[in-house]
Amino acid sequence: MRLLAFGDSFVAGAGDPDHQGWLGRALAGRPEVTAYNHGVRGDTSADVARRWPAEAQARLTDAEPCRIVFSFGRNDANAAEGGGARLSPAESLKTANLLLTQGLRLAPVLMVGPPPAHEPALAARLEGLNEAFKTLCARQRVPYIDVLRPLAVSGTWLAEARAGDGAHPRAGGYQLMADLIAAHPAWRRFTGQD
Amino acid sequence: MRLLAFGDSFVAGAGDPDHQGWLGRALAGRPEVTAYNHGVRGDTSADVARRWPAEAQARLTDAEPCRIVFSFGRNDANAAEGGGARLSPAESLKTANLLLTQGLRLAPVLMVGPPPAHEPALAARLEGLNEAFKTLCARQRVPYIDVLRPLAVSGTWLAEARAGDGAHPRAGGYQLMADLIAAHPAWRRFTGQD
Repeated sequence: MRLLAFGDSFVAGAGDPDHQGWLGRALAGRPEVTAYNHGVRGDTSADVARRWPAEAQARLTDAEPCRIVFSFGRNDANAAEGGGARLSPAESLKTANLLLTQGLRLAPVLMVGPPPAHEPALAARLEGLNEAFKTLCARQRVPYIDVLRPLAVSGTWLAEARAGDGAHPRAGGYQLMADLIAAHPAWRRFTGQD
Repeated sequence: MRLLAFGDSFVAGAGDPDHQGWLGRALAGRPEVTAYNHGVRGDTSADVARRWPAEAQARLTDAEPCRIVFSFGRNDANAAEGGGARLSPAESLKTANLLLTQGLRLAPVLMVGPPPAHEPALAARLEGLNEAFKTLCARQRVPYIDVLRPLAVSGTWLAEARAGDGAHPRAGGYQLMADLIAAHPAWRRFTGQD
């Protein structure tokens, strides 16, 4: 199986000293899955939309099952110069809807929601996006894995982020996110484990 | 630092149960380096040449130091239907020269040679490519890390490949390749460790 994941620095695993990120950790022990990690630091949903078709094209194959994962939102919600978010919730949703629609034409799609942030205004915007993405995915019949509250409640993610660059955890936070995802029934079905 | 690596399934780390590959393993313990892994299964140098400019464009930044790694050759040398290699040595060299030239305009470049193979005819073609890439890199003043003989001699790489799908090792082979690379003075200079 080939699993293509498109998104932001959290998908890329920025700050993970083991260079696995949640994607590699969620697939640990599964050498039959080739993971193509297409997370890019700073990317909003709109940035992903621009680059993902050509990048997917070069990696999708008829020779084995393929899967597409999207995960973004933090950079959409991050503060823009002059206040507010870099993208409005309406823009994020419109782009997410486009990505899911394009993705579903090519392979089964799954979406992973954004991880938590400290700053209250950003955290509130992420709560809103997380709920909106969840509703959109239900409408598109795409499985959605919500990690926002569990990661915030555990404390590990935010503590590691605070000790690091403010945004990205280290091994512990990524492992926790991977554990949430790998144990999710939707992920197990999606990756052919159940 | 952002390190972009372009190449084949060995760059992707296909078969590594830990989903790090040699790239993640060579950068272990260095969370300040964001690794963008652009290895694609089955890709020849010509396939890399087609996709790499757009993919690099979306990831290179002026905000921090960037580095570009190329590693390919196995799929160039693999047997084509009807015999011989998929790409002639002359085609591989011409493409490698183009990639190095394009890359050097954007960031410092390093090349990692192909790992070994069992089949005698393929192994002989890889020996030839390895030497030709080394000469090309010397001419372009690009550091070249030769892993072919050390990996063949150790036995681990080929034993794991034989036990697996015939081409790709598991954790041991990738770790060995990573150790060779991480200890190389050219890699240490290239990634800012010395």
